[in-house]
Amino acid sequence: MKIAIAQLNFHIGNFEGNLKKMLEAVDTAKQQSADLICFSELATVGYPPRDFLEFEDFVELAEHTIQELAKAANGIAIVVGSPVKNPVIEGKDLYNAAYFLEEGKVKYIQHKTLLPTYDIFDEYRYFEPATEWQVVKYKGKKIALTVCEDIWNIGNENPLYTICPMDEMIGQGPDFILNLSASPFSYTQASTRIKIVQANVARYGVPMFYVNHCGAQTEIVFDGGSLVVSPDGKVYDELPYFEESVRTYELDDVISGGKEREMPKDKMTLIHDALVTGIRDYFGKLGFKRAILGLSGGIDSAVVAVLAARALGPDNVRLVLMPSQFSSAHSVEDARELAQNLGAQYDLIPIESIYNSFMDALKPHFWATDFGIAEENLQSRSRGNLLMALSNKFGNILLNTSNKSEVAVGYGTLYGDMCGGLSVIGDVYKTEVFELARFMNKDEEVIPENIITKPPSAELKPDQKDTDSLPPYEDLDEILYHYIEMRQSPQDIIEMGYDEKLVRRILRLVNINEFKRHQMAPVLRVSTKAFGMGRRMPIVGKYLS
Amino acid sequence: MKIAIAQLNFHIGNFEGNLKKMLEAVDTAKQQSADLICFSELATVGYPPRDFLEFEDFVELAEHTIQELAKAANGIAIVVGSPVKNPVIEGKDLYNAAYFLEEGKVKYIQHKTLLPTYDIFDEYRYFEPATEWQVVKYKGKKIALTVCEDIWNIGNENPLYTICPMDEMIGQGPDFILNLSASPFSYTQASTRIKIVQANVARYGVPMFYVNHCGAQTEIVFDGGSLVVSPDGKVYDELPYFEESVRTYELDDVISGGKEREMPKDKMTLIHDALVTGIRDYFGKLGFKRAILGLSGGIDSAVVAVLAARALGPDNVRLVLMPSQFSSAHSVEDARELAQNLGAQYDLIPIESIYNSFMDALKPHFWATDFGIAEENLQSRSRGNLLMALSNKFGNILLNTSNKSEVAVGYGTLYGDMCGGLSVIGDVYKTEVFELARFMNKDEEVIPENIITKPPSAELKPDQKDTDSLPPYEDLDEILYHYIEMRQSPQDIIEMGYDEKLVRRILRLVNINEFKRHQMAPVLRVSTKAFGMGRRMPIVGKYLS
Repeated sequence: MKIAIAQLNFHIGNFEGNLKKMLEAVDTAKQQSADLICFSELATVGYPPRDFLEFEDFVELAEHTIQELAKAANGIAIVVGSPVKNPVIEGKDLYNAAYFLEEGKVKYIQHKTLLPTYDIFDEYRYFEPATEWQVVKYKGKKIALTVCEDIWNIGNENPLYTICPMDEMIGQGPDFILNLSASPFSYTQASTRIKIVQANVARYGVPMFYVNHCGAQTEIVFDGGSLVVSPDGKVYDELPYFEESVRTYELDDVISGGKEREMPKDKMTLIHDALVTGIRDYFGKLGFKRAILGLSGGIDSAVVAVLAARALGPDNVRLVLMPSQFSSAHSVEDARELAQNLGAQYDLIPIESIYNSFMDALKPHFWATDFGIAEENLQSRSRGNLLMALSNKFGNILLNTSNKSEVAVGYGTLYGDMCGGLSVIGDVYKTEVFELARFMNKDEEVIPENIITKPPSAELKPDQKDTDSLPPYEDLDEILYHYIEMRQSPQDIIEMGYDEKLVRRILRLVNINEFKRHQMAPVLRVSTKAFGMGRRMPIVGKYLS
Repeated sequence: MKIAIAQLNFHIGNFEGNLKKMLEAVDTAKQQSADLICFSELATVGYPPRDFLEFEDFVELAEHTIQELAKAANGIAIVVGSPVKNPVIEGKDLYNAAYFLEEGKVKYIQHKTLLPTYDIFDEYRYFEPATEWQVVKYKGKKIALTVCEDIWNIGNENPLYTICPMDEMIGQGPDFILNLSASPFSYTQASTRIKIVQANVARYGVPMFYVNHCGAQTEIVFDGGSLVVSPDGKVYDELPYFEESVRTYELDDVISGGKEREMPKDKMTLIHDALVTGIRDYFGKLGFKRAILGLSGGIDSAVVAVLAARALGPDNVRLVLMPSQFSSAHSVEDARELAQNLGAQYDLIPIESIYNSFMDALKPHFWATDFGIAEENLQSRSRGNLLMALSNKFGNILLNTSNKSEVAVGYGTLYGDMCGGLSVIGDVYKTEVFELARFMNKDEEVIPENIITKPPSAELKPDQKDTDSLPPYEDLDEILYHYIEMRQSPQDIIEMGYDEKLVRRILRLVNINEFKRHQMAPVLRVSTKAFGMGRRMPIVGKYLS
């Protein structure tokens, strides 16, 4: 039996587009003489459809897509993820399901059992878990259908669920396991995923074909990396990252095993490609082509400019240099050099006269007060306004350039440098931004060396440096990582050797700045804990604040 | 037996403050000779604690609070909601529990069974459901402990759950039911709640004491309205809305019944009081006193100004009038009159020179383009900047004044009039804003009549009216309600008699403006479906867009 797996970039709610992609893949699979083709989880609707699932009309469009797709299931079986209505009145209205389509009809529907409801996942919000498990018989083989999380409850020290669907099915003697996934990228995910698939293969002694979603949906990036693992535990094949791909395998060959083909997993390559994918799909799926961003001469906007140029092409990126009286001469020079390296359009719009007109209007109200946060923020907000005016006038999306470290401690201006439709590096710590810049420069100097080596500064008052008000980024990022990603207590972090006062100040900054992050653009997620939908904190919370 | 119920305004993560409140209530209950006092759901930590629950340290602080509270359980039993660790390795790490404290110790812990995971609720994200149910014996009585949703699975046409915890307990012969709730306000909730409690009492034949949280936590307002329902089905007592209250009842009297005391439930009174509570607690819990807002002369900012003055006192509200060349003379006059009626400070800061300085800076870039959205938005953003500068300088929180109708269709400027730390009327449709204004004026004219009667206009270009680009608000709001609150399909709404093109245009506007709402301040929730944490939509979604 020949099995095709199709790792495609679906678009949430784009039923027509998703169907078209699947029909093309079915044709490809037929050309590859496949007996069966498997798509990813919720392929008809894209993942995650979120509260669209609460619209009956939306679910019916998914059902219609299944009916259309079933028509292509002749001479080939099609396995595809889609929501299905719960016929029983009690419980949630839907199941998250794997459809088995054969001879133009729905032959079987296997519901998903384990419904991730943590981090970015809300599946129990919509779906009722499976209570029945049945292998599907097809051309003399028995197939176990599993959906994403269904295979993730083994090999963990702290299993989230009390049930294991493959344990229920293994007694029926399946010949292989299909897993339909929509498993989001993080820079450790590809390795974790392989271990989990291998743990399943080791436990059940049959090969697994694991099909993942690829491409980005707003902040969530799917890296693909679909897998075929042989009973010998080896990765028989791993599909490319961040690319669509349809490949067909002879089941007997996979069972024989002995082959091994894994993709390289370099952290910076993965983050770089994830961010490029995130930008490209955000624009593509919203129907936009061109980006705009402010180029300060600092490293954050430099890195975002390079990513944007790689995602959209330098012709589609407009860079705006907006110096104030506090900007150093080298900042403008460095920014200009970067723009030239990229071959992107850049404009110079000084903000001093705008800033002065604000200060004139505010003079009677600011009388006898000292220069402070209000004045610093006015500069940042003047820049935000200029960028948004250009964005509105010419129809480009403003990219936000805040990094994770500053977003964490609130070192950014709401409605100023926090403006933007998409936060590109809001899940990349400052120390990682430096790594990424060096990575980008590895073949040739794209980012001028001076941008990487000079001390970071917001340049909102004379001779300002980030380290005036923050610890060195190496320490800051380490403390933040243990608090945000690892959710450790202040005491735990202090015991790692950090100064108590510093730790308490940092964690307090994180918590009192929740109100800023609440109003931030979606953040492309590359870590296991990004700001945004995967981290839900109360604004009025008093804990550690 | 005398039973006290304590409806208190807790603060998320403020363990010390919450404990102090509870100890004071225990004292009050002792003075009222109560044998038992019951607090609301998750009272130790405040509701909803959200991802703070993922911090082990946070949960341990809750456990410590329980230990401290238990010390006061002498001569009185204390029933209190708090998270508790799941001792079993499988499943979620926590239970949402009702503690029964007696003689200085934890006597029993009943876990919550039904974990709401819809709208603003994420309980299955954190909690494992109960699998055991046991009545508690105390002073010769048997008590059934239930937590919020546990009593909500009866009397529904479409039950969300497949289990009913009281059905499991009724065989043990409880004398009464305690329900610990954190049930958020909407303007229909008080009536719905009474029906549900009555349905339980009718089914199980025993009285119920229902204890709700009161006060606001960011966008979620809890109205209190705790209930005592007698076996005869009558509301023996209903506690006040939006106020703390501790009351004690003789169980025998409640069982005898015959008494009936319900609070009035006028929609506008409820919405008004909910919004005042929402503002007051947002400021109070964040440690702020003073608000600032822009007063345009329109009805939205007028209504928010009145609410702010009532929540914080007129001395703590600063109103800023920021006319442009497009503002009508009456706008400034109307705004000034309102400020004077309220007795609040107001400032006049014309924006023309600021707007001109932006246009000067942009002239080379905007060359040969027509006046449009970019120019309109620049005015709105100049105002946003001025308000934020004053907010930063003087430490007041900017209140957002956008209404639900405009937020729905994206008729607002990101980083302009969408600025603000809290959206006060973002869940109030424009037609309801008019109702609310008339309600505020019912005893004396607070809002100048002209503000209510003139046609709504953004005044961002000459002679602009809202109806230039939108249908009449009566129609718009009706269409929006059916789409947002009722989640009906375009076809359903068209069949109600609305023009197909109009319906499709409105629903498209709602969907393509998700990116704006993503960056909006938290919206005080007064309906059953507010923008924000209770409505989670994809930004790149293609459905109806």
